[in-house]
Order: sequence, then C-alpha cells, then structure tokens
Amino acid sequence: MERPRHQGMAKNTCMRWRLPLVCLLWEVAMIVLFGVFVRFGPEADAHWEEEKHQMNLTSDIENDFYFRYPSFQDVHVMIFVGFGFLMTFLKRYGFGAVGFNFLLAAFGIQWALLMQGWFHSFQNGKILIGVENLINADFCVGSVCVAFGAILGKTSPVQLLVMTLFQVTLFAVNEYILLNLLHVKDAGGSMTIHTFGAYFGLTVTRVLYRPNLEQSKDKQGSVYHSDLFAMIGTLYLWMYWPSFNSAISEHGDAQHRAAINTYCSLAACVLTTMAFSSMLQKKGKLDMVHIQNATLAGGVAVGTSAEMMLTPYGSLIVGFICGIVSTVGYVYLTPVLESRLHIQDTCGIHNLHGMPGLIGGIVGAITAAAATEDVYGKEGFIKAFDFTGSYKTRTPSVQGGFQAAGIFVSLLMAFAGGALVGAILKLPIWGDAADENCFEDDIYWEVPEDEESDVYHMHNPDKPASP
Amino acid sequence: MERPRHQGMAKNTCMRWRLPLVCLLWEVAMIVLFGVFVRFGPEADAHWEEEKHQMNLTSDIENDFYFRYPSFQDVHVMIFVGFGFLMTFLKRYGFGAVGFNFLLAAFGIQWALLMQGWFHSFQNGKILIGVENLINADFCVGSVCVAFGAILGKTSPVQLLVMTLFQVTLFAVNEYILLNLLHVKDAGGSMTIHTFGAYFGLTVTRVLYRPNLEQSKDKQGSVYHSDLFAMIGTLYLWMYWPSFNSAISEHGDAQHRAAINTYCSLAACVLTTMAFSSMLQKKGKLDMVHIQNATLAGGVAVGTSAEMMLTPYGSLIVGFICGIVSTVGYVYLTPVLESRLHIQDTCGIHNLHGMPGLIGGIVGAITAAAATEDVYGKEGFIKAFDFTGSYKTRTPSVQGGFQAAGIFVSLLMAFAGGALVGAILKLPIWGDAADENCFEDDIYWEVPEDEESDVYHMHNPDKPASP
Amino acid sequence: MERPRHQGMAKNTCMRWRLPLVCLLWEVAMIVLFGVFVRFGPEADAHWEEEKHQMNLTSDIENDFYFRYPSFQDVHVMIFVGFGFLMTFLKRYGFGAVGFNFLLAAFGIQWALLMQGWFHSFQNGKILIGVENLINADFCVGSVCVAFGAILGKTSPVQLLVMTLFQVTLFAVNEYILLNLLHVKDAGGSMTIHTFGAYFGLTVTRVLYRPNLEQSKDKQGSVYHSDLFAMIGTLYLWMYWPSFNSAISEHGDAQHRAAINTYCSLAACVLTTMAFSSMLQKKGKLDMVHIQNATLAGGVAVGTSAEMMLTPYGSLIVGFICGIVSTVGYVYLTPVLESRLHIQDTCGIHNLHGMPGLIGGIVGAITAAAATEDVYGKEGFIKAFDFTGSYKTRTPSVQGGFQAAGIFVSLLMAFAGGALVGAILKLPIWGDAADENCFEDDIYWEVPEDEESDVYHMHNPDKPASP
Repeated sequence: MERPRHQGMAKNTCMRWRLPLVCLLWEVAMIVLFGVFVRFGPEADAHWEEEKHQMNLTSDIENDFYFRYPSFQDVHVMIFVGFGFLMTFLKRYGFGAVGFNFLLAAFGIQWALLMQGWFHSFQNGKILIGVENLINADFCVGSVCVAFGAILGKTSPVQLLVMTLFQVTLFAVNEYILLNLLHVKDAGGSMTIHTFGAYFGLTVTRVLYRPNLEQSKDKQGSVYHSDLFAMIGTLYLWMYWPSFNSAISEHGDAQHRAAINTYCSLAACVLTTMAFSSMLQKKGKLDMVHIQNATLAGGVAVGTSAEMMLTPYGSLIVGFICGIVSTVGYVYLTPVLESRLHIQDTCGIHNLHGMPGLIGGIVGAITAAAATEDVYGKEGFIKAFDFTGSYKTRTPSVQGGFQAAGIFVSLLMAFAGGALVGAILKLPIWGDAADENCFEDDIYWEVPEDEESDVYHMHNPDKPASP
Repeated sequence: MERPRHQGMAKNTCMRWRLPLVCLLWEVAMIVLFGVFVRFGPEADAHWEEEKHQMNLTSDIENDFYFRYPSFQDVHVMIFVGFGFLMTFLKRYGFGAVGFNFLLAAFGIQWALLMQGWFHSFQNGKILIGVENLINADFCVGSVCVAFGAILGKTSPVQLLVMTLFQVTLFAVNEYILLNLLHVKDAGGSMTIHTFGAYFGLTVTRVLYRPNLEQSKDKQGSVYHSDLFAMIGTLYLWMYWPSFNSAISEHGDAQHRAAINTYCSLAACVLTTMAFSSMLQKKGKLDMVHIQNATLAGGVAVGTSAEMMLTPYGSLIVGFICGIVSTVGYVYLTPVLESRLHIQDTCGIHNLHGMPGLIGGIVGAITAAAATEDVYGKEGFIKAFDFTGSYKTRTPSVQGGFQAAGIFVSLLMAFAGGALVGAILKLPIWGDAADENCFEDDIYWEVPEDEESDVYHMHNPDKPASP
Repeated sequence: MERPRHQGMAKNTCMRWRLPLVCLLWEVAMIVLFGVFVRFGPEADAHWEEEKHQMNLTSDIENDFYFRYPSFQDVHVMIFVGFGFLMTFLKRYGFGAVGFNFLLAAFGIQWALLMQGWFHSFQNGKILIGVENLINADFCVGSVCVAFGAILGKTSPVQLLVMTLFQVTLFAVNEYILLNLLHVKDAGGSMTIHTFGAYFGLTVTRVLYRPNLEQSKDKQGSVYHSDLFAMIGTLYLWMYWPSFNSAISEHGDAQHRAAINTYCSLAACVLTTMAFSSMLQKKGKLDMVHIQNATLAGGVAVGTSAEMMLTPYGSLIVGFICGIVSTVGYVYLTPVLESRLHIQDTCGIHNLHGMPGLIGGIVGAITAAAATEDVYGKEGFIKAFDFTGSYKTRTPSVQGGFQAAGIFVSLLMAFAGGALVGAILKLPIWGDAADENCFEDDIYWEVPEDEESDVYHMHNPDKPASP
C-alpha cells in the first residue's frame, strides 16, 4: 500500500544555504562584537595577582570561581542535557530535540553574554566577564529552551535561531527592568526565566497555529525507549535544580538556603505528581508525561523565594501545590488550550513553566512582603533584599508590591515579544515543515536506517534465521 | 493464538486510590512535621552574618556549603540517576526502575531529614538543617535503593513507600546506635548503608517469596538497549563513589584521603571483575550483569575505611578482592540463594552490597585497630577517630572491637527489621502483581505502543514500504 | 537462507584465559608497585593537621581538594561517560564501546599514577599523591581513549590493555619532555593529550590495516537510538570541557580564565559545525557524526592556550575555525585517509583530536609568543608562564619557540610509539576478530536476544496479537 507523500502544500525545507548563512554570519558578528566589547573580569584576568593585594585577599580561594563554578557546571548540564533530553520523548524527534537545543543554546549564550553584559557588566566601554556571567548567560538561554518546548517539532533550525536572537534580547531588557529598575529579587528566575519564557513561547506557538496538525498526530507520542531518554533529562533537571536556584545568590547563607529550599520543594512535588497522575487516570496507571514534567514544577515555583527565608516547610507546601497544579494542567488544561485557544503546546510548558512560574512570582512577593528583621537579623535583612543606597528605606511590603509588579512586566514582555517574534517566524522564508511532516527528524537530519532485526541475525550467525 | 490472561490468581493491582491516598496523606504529614520541627541551621539562616562575627570567620567561603555542596550533588546523582538507571536493565521494567526509585527516594529524603534530625541535629526542640543533613538524607535513602534492588519488579509502588517509611526509621535507629552509642566510624556507610540495606532487602524478599516466579522468567532478562541504559547508572555510581565516601568526612585531609582511597579501590575492582566475568563463562565472553554491578563492589567495601589511612595499595587490595567475590557471587551464589534459601534477589544486591558491605565493615575494623599515632600524627590520630571527651582513652584495638560490633548490630537490625517489614508487605492490600505479571511496566504505567517499524516507514515516505 | 559463517580465516577470539591472565597479573603488579611506591601527599595524609600549622594555614578550605575536586569529578565523567558513550554510536558495538573504555581507563589510571608519579611527584623514594595526581592520571588515560577511537571495533580487550600499558608509558615520557625539559605550558593537553593520542592511534590503526574491512561495512553505521546514546557522550564532553582545560591550571585567575576561554571556543564551534554539516550535504540535512564530534574540536584547540590571555574573542575565532576544519575533515579527509593511506579511523579522531590538537599547539605557541607584561601584569606574567628559577630570563618569543617544539616532539613520539605498539598488537596472539566480525559485540560479550516485539505482545495481553 502506498502512502500519499504530501497531503498539504509541498514546502521547501532544505536548509542547505539558509542554515549555514545564518550560522556563519551571526558567528562572525559575535566575534566582532566580542572583539570590541568583551574582556576578562578582574577575577579572571592575569592582573588578579595585583588585584588581590589591593583587595587585601590572602588566598586564591576567595576568587568567585570557587564560590560559583560547581553551580555553573550543574546549570550547564541542565541547559544542554536537562532540557535537551527532556524533549527526546517524541518517538522520532530525538535528534531535533537534543541537536537543535544544542544549536540554539550555543548561539544564545554568546548573544546573552553581550546583551546582559551591556546592561549589567559594562565598565569603561568594556563588558567584563567572569563565572557569574556564564551562569547568567545559561539562565537566559534557559528561557529560550522553555519556549522551544512549546514549538518543538514544528519549526526549522533557522526559525529557532531567529527566535533565540529576539528572545535573548527581550529577556535582557525584561531582566534589566525587573532587577535594576524595580529592584526585584529573582535569583532562580521564576519570573525572568520561567514566566517570561513560557508565555513568550505560548504566544509564539499561538501565532504559528497549525490547524491541520492532527496529520502528524501519530508521531506526537513516545516509544518505550524515548521515554527513558527523556527521564535522563528530567532527573538532571530535578537533581541540579538546587544549584540552579542558588547559583547567583549572595555568597554564604543565601546560596546555602536556596539549595535547601529547592531540595525540599522538589521532593514534595514528586509525591503530589505521582498521586494525581494515578488519580486522574481511570485505571490508576502512572503517566510518564507527568513524571517527566510535573515533578519539576516545584523547582520553578521557588525560583524567586528560595534564597529568602521561605523555610523548609514553606518549600514543601509550594512543591505540594505545584505538583498538583502541573499534573492537573497536563490532564485538563492542555487539551482545552489547543481546542479553544489554538495554543499547540508540544511539551506542555504552560504546566511546567507557565503556571508554576506565576506561582513562583506570587510566592516570592508574599515571602518578601512578610520579611521581618526578627526573622532575618538586622544585617541579614539588609543583605537579603539589598536595601542599601537608594533602596535604603524600602519596606518589605513595598518590596512585595514591586515583586508583584515584576510578574506583570514579565507577562507583558512575553505577550508583546511573543506576538512580534511569532509574526516574524510566520514569514514563509524559514523552511519550516508541512503539517504532516512535523515531529519527524527526517526533514532536517540524516537518519540512519533501522535494521535492528537484520543486524540481530547478522551478528548471530550461529543461530538459524527464523524461517 | 490467544494467550490466557491470568494464569494465577487474578490480583487487583489498580493504584487509583491507594497510591494517591498514601502520597497525599504522608506528604501532608511531612509538611506538618517540618512545620513543627525543621528550621535552617546557622550556616543557612539569614542570621549567618551575625554568626560569622561571633565565630570570627572572615570569609563566606568558610560556610560548610562550599566544603560539601559539590559532594552533595554527586551523591544526589548517584541516588537518582545511579540507582535509578542501574535497575533499568530489565527489558520491560525501565519505567518502574527509574520512576519508583524516584518516588521512594523523594519521599525517603524528607522522612530521613526528620528521623536523622531528631537523633543528630535536634536543638531546643528544633531540627536545624544544612547541606550535611541533605547528604545524610540521601545516604539513608541509598540504603532503601539497595533494598529495592532485591524486590525490583515484584512490588507495587505503595509497598515501596511503606518499606521506605519503615526502613528509613530503622536506618536512623541503627545509625544512632553505631555512630553515637558505639562511637563507630562509618563515613561511607559500609555498615549503615550497604550491609544494613542489603540484608534488610534480602530478608524482605525472602518473606515475600514467590514460588511461581518462573512464570515471568522471560521478562527477567535484558535487551541490548536496556543494558546500555543500565551502564549509565553503573558509571555514575562508579565515578561519583569517591564523593560518596568522602562527602561527610571531616574537612581537609579526611575528605581528600577518602576520595583517593575510593578511586583506587574502584579501579582495581574493574580489572578483577572483568577477569572473573570472562573466566567463569565457558566461551570466555563478558557478562553485562557483572560489569554493571561487580565493578562497584570496591566502592562499597572501602565505605568505612576510606577516610582512614587505608593507603592507596590497601585500597587496591580491597578492590581486587571484592571484584572477585562479587562476580563469583553472581555466578554461583545467587542461583543457590534462590533455589535453597528461597531468596529471589532481582539485582543481586547480595553480591554488590551484602558481601562487599560485610567486607567493608571488617576492613574498617582492622584498619581502625591497626591505627597508630605514628601513622596518623598525634593530632591527626585524635581527629581521625574523634578520641575526645568520653572517648579520650579509647585505644585503636578497642575501637576495632566496637567497629566489629557495629557489623553485627547492623545485621541484627536488618534481619529483624526486614522480617517485620516483609510481614507487613505480605498483607494482601497493597496491590502487588501476580507472579506472571512481575517485571513488566504495563501493570502500573501507561506504556506507549511500540510501533518502531511503522514509524520508520511513515517517516520515510520516499522509500517504498516492504511489500 | 544460510549465511556462511567465516569468510576469512577463522580466528580464535576466545578471551577465557588471555583476558583474566592479563587483568589479574597486571593488577597484582599494580598492588606491589603501589605498595612499594605510592603514599598520600601531605594534603591527604593524616599529618595534615601539623602540616597546616607549619604552612600557617588557618583553614581547611586551603586544602587543594577544595580547589580541584569539582574539576576532577567533571574530568572523571568525561573519561568514563564522555568517551565511553561517544563511541556507542555503532549499531552493535555499544557494550564494547562503554565496557572496553571502562576497562582500559580503570587500568590506565593506576599505571598513570605510577608513571607520572615517578616523573613528577617522586620524593624520598615515594610517590606522594593528591587530587591533582588523580586529574593527571585521568588526563593521561584520556589520550588512550582518543587512540581507542581509531581502532574501535577492531581490537580485542587484551590488545587494548597492551596498548594502554605502552601508551601511558610513552605519554608520561612525552609529558616529562614537554613540561619539564622544554618548560612548555599545556594545561589542557592540546599537545600531550590530543595531538599525541590522535597520531599515536592513527599510526596504530595504520599498522593494523585490514584490507577486507568492507566485509563488516554494514555494521559500521548507527541506528536511531545508538545516535542518541552517543549524544550523551558528546554533551558531557562538551559541557565539562571548561573543567578539563582549567583543572590543573594555577589557582585563581588562571583556572577562572581557562574555563571562560573554553566555554567561548566551544560555543562558536557548534555554530560552524552545524553550518558546514548542512552545507556539505546535497540535501542540506545535518549529519549526526558531525554534531557528535566536530562540536568538540573547539575544546581541543584551546587546550594549550585557554589558561593564557587568549581573550574571549580569540577563543571564538579558534572555535569558529575548528568547527569548520573538523567537519570538512569528516566529509573529505577521512575517506581519503582510508583509501590512500590505509588509515581506518573508526571515530574520525583525526578530525576531532588530530587536526584540532595541532591547531591547539600552534595557537598556544602564538599566544605565548605574543604575551606582554602589559597584558598580564608584572606578577601575572611571571606566574602565567612560570618564568622563575632557571627560566627567569626566558622571553615570550623564546617560549613560543619551545611551545612549537613541543608539537613536533609530541608528533615524533606518537609516530614512533604508534609504530612500535602497532607492531606488537599485530602479533597473532591477542585474539582480535576476523574482518567480517569487526564492530560487533557478540564476539566478546554475552549479548541478550532482542525480542522486543514478542515482549510487547506478552506485556500487553489485553490486545490481540497480530494475526
């Protein structure tokens, strides 16, 4: 039986000139911009020896490298293995999931070093970078990985690079507004990374709505081994999330506390996810989609508050709630979003990053508003919220208000930016696949033939082939 | 040809109410108990700024976070990816291996924070936690993961949670007896984690003996790719074991030494495992079961002594022996345990954790008994064995005696506790599978259909389908 | 249809006595040599307490363990999971890739501790080891893993062990010549690890040339899932390479800088690899072989210069070039090497380690020659190149000359050593496979039967079996 080749409009998905052109031109641009702007920060520069004398540091261990490098590597693993493998659950889109995530993240971190550098590390015409900048660049790219989850399988690599360029830019602007203008705390990025990334991605996928996507419905599921590959991604995100939320917190107790709170929240989240995954299915069987995703919601939701005095039981409560919200979202909300609002969300990022991100912003606002000198100590209170300089007189409740404002700014940036970028990605020049070819690697990748059974007989010449 | 559906007694394996009920109720209990008892320790609390002044610390780098957090993350990976993926070797139990390990560990670490906290970190009615508590909680759960290996594929998730609840409790009691009452050293847990965990699990599986388990014999093997997934678990356990054995050792030389000794022992263990795996097979071919498991025995067996002056060559000798013992165990002992003693040990934990754990206890006792002021230095000697306070006058040989006593206490707790918990798990209310349905994910998981060949033709419309 | 069993000469590939003999004898030799020579270094010895007083150290955090252990663990992951899984891309050689890599690395690190110890850490008749020695041993083994890539699938485990023994020895000699006699800087091993390892391996595979290797051509490709397993290796190498290049750099700014430079170089490399992978294929589709390998060339190529003031944009340029060189090498050079020079390079190590290693040596020589006191600062300049003692008067341009000499010495050692070792491995006593049995695990491993479809029907008794 022959299968008709192209039911819809035949599309030109050949990347041969488009992808190389974009990659090479943009990389040249990076080199030029790095050449003009980027230099080593004082702790990575060979002048550090003299710097040490000036700063009266007696030991190299005081170099920020030793405070943050282990966390950086954990975050790095989350971005490349965590997000990359989490998205390999589709039966025939593993190359695209891991490979395109690799591509966009590798470009994104370079562009993020520049964008965030201009806003935050710009001194005397130069961007001075150190390990904290690397973490922030990874964070910024994290929000692109989130958005990628919504459009997974439906876009060309060139579209992804274009989206990365714009989203990193908007991320840096939004981050600047929140951290510098509103003086908001968001070390783990509930607002800047997850809320912004999720609603940006959802808006993009809304604009790119494909009415006939059910033509590739058969490829939107998983197979047994692809679900195990995805669990690699899940577990690395889950295990290293304490590093994520503590990576750029203040040295000392803040980093320590952020790790503990995140650990607690994530642990609670696993139990409620399992509970609701089983409860919401007629036969009570667990669903891998929930285990792979909703178990992580607890990490998203303490992104803002983990470094505050949320307390371990507060973290458990947040994780408890988010496991439920996220799992219920997968079961009931995602189908509705697609049928009613035409939002096709491949990985369900609304459940994993959208709602938990919003919850994280709210929890952060409440935790900040509830802060007292009694709980934090006099010095700790000032240090935790950086109530110094022009913010010397800000009170916790005012801080809570600004935190809440940060949520709305992030949402606004996400919707506006997503609409703009979605419109750009809709241009018919980027080589995206036809509806019936979505979710398959064969469009953009050389895919090896699958001859397992043949191979088996070949490598087992002793045994007679089945008749 | 139709296959009869249930050859044995039809069992109700539906988890729909049982699993959610246990997960939600217990998590609520965790929240309440954490609310009443758990607070941040001084190094994670916002009062740390003032604490620093009092302790005359000049730098945040003195926070315990920077001494232990990298090791913590390595241990965390071992528990969730290491144990989780090690058990994915079964052809159709990958979801259960990774997923149930995830569930029981996420619950276990919370309960362990409480149990261990009451025994070890209880001050003024509060449990004060920091990064060392997180490591200890992971350690405690490690012993549950060990026991899980014995009953893998034969129990429901509710049974696993019940086992975790009891085993963590007993672990904490046993640990308290060893560390506090006997003043025994066991930083890498040869006795508390491995010996206890293994014989506890073996006792449980003995009580749960299934006489007709050969009905699911066809599912007890591996397939090609499941063996590769298992190697991910093996390698992460192997690579990070130096972190495991050094994670809670004293700052400085003890941590440093524990990592080196473990590194050496593990390296030697690989060579003897390979040697005996090949030697004990008629055609001289290597067996993945041995490579996946026996290569790790060297890490188990220096768990007690790694932080002592075992010396690198001492470590090599221990690893050398354990690779042999463990591999021989897989080939000769495991079948006998099943046929004679009715101990069905799915992962062969007796070979990987049982015997090497005992060896580890013995090696620890000998190493302690052989300690001299000459080898350790005057200060180092006291620091290494904490011969202070009421233990000021304890001699190495007495310490060796107490170490040996620790082995027996651990065994006793394991047998008694395992019998009790096994009896509880035998109650016909937990929804475990019938004998012919063991080792298959389909009972508790939504398993995707495997249509690889179909998919292949679908995503390759250019090529004609096979006639 | 029956398939003839052995088209070529029937070979005895049975490992039953050969492998155990080598493993056990050599491990005993290790124990004896460790017993005679290896002791804990001062920072891992229990006398550290007294050492601290003498060195006026006020805190345990000054122990080298805390400066280097996180990097060590990252390097450890690269050697065992990175290299191991990178080579699992072959459809039926996953066990051999991961398992033999595990075996040779576990032996190699022990022998490297001794060889490097005699050259670099020998005091009063003893080799004193600490965490830096563990890193160096892993590095040394890294060069064996590189060479393994060239002969992957064509050698027996005994051959691999023999190669490891000799290669580690030669590595240590070469390293001694470069670092001690020529006073060359090569912290990330562009010359000592990659150039030496690659050309050594290429020479060995040339000597072992198999004219009829096309008989196993069908097994030299990948299948879908094996490519995903290989991506695990790729990503861990890629993510942790900043740790690799910075692991043994001087404390402080040098480590910090090396990580940043490597991060930048690798990011740029991904973009040019993707660009050329697409450009060089008629249909513009990406090739997994390139993504898995060429993306890493940027890390190799800054191995020498990463700790110098290469600057971020300099790193981008190096990465940019190497992604191109490496990808072009895979497409055009590898086939020519095989057809013209009879170099059968299974993993294409010439493209990933050979050429990028040479580039790395050259970039290092140029960067060193271009160094000025202005750029490095007076103290930083001396510290960066260790221009002290008898090298007090060496100028940057002279240093550049010595760096360049280091490349040639490494090449010379590689060619001479590779020819020698290749000749030894050609002896017909090691049990290597016949040409038609290359690239298949079945020769040396117990391979499970692949009955996925059967299993599927078994575990899905509800659904009727296909008629």
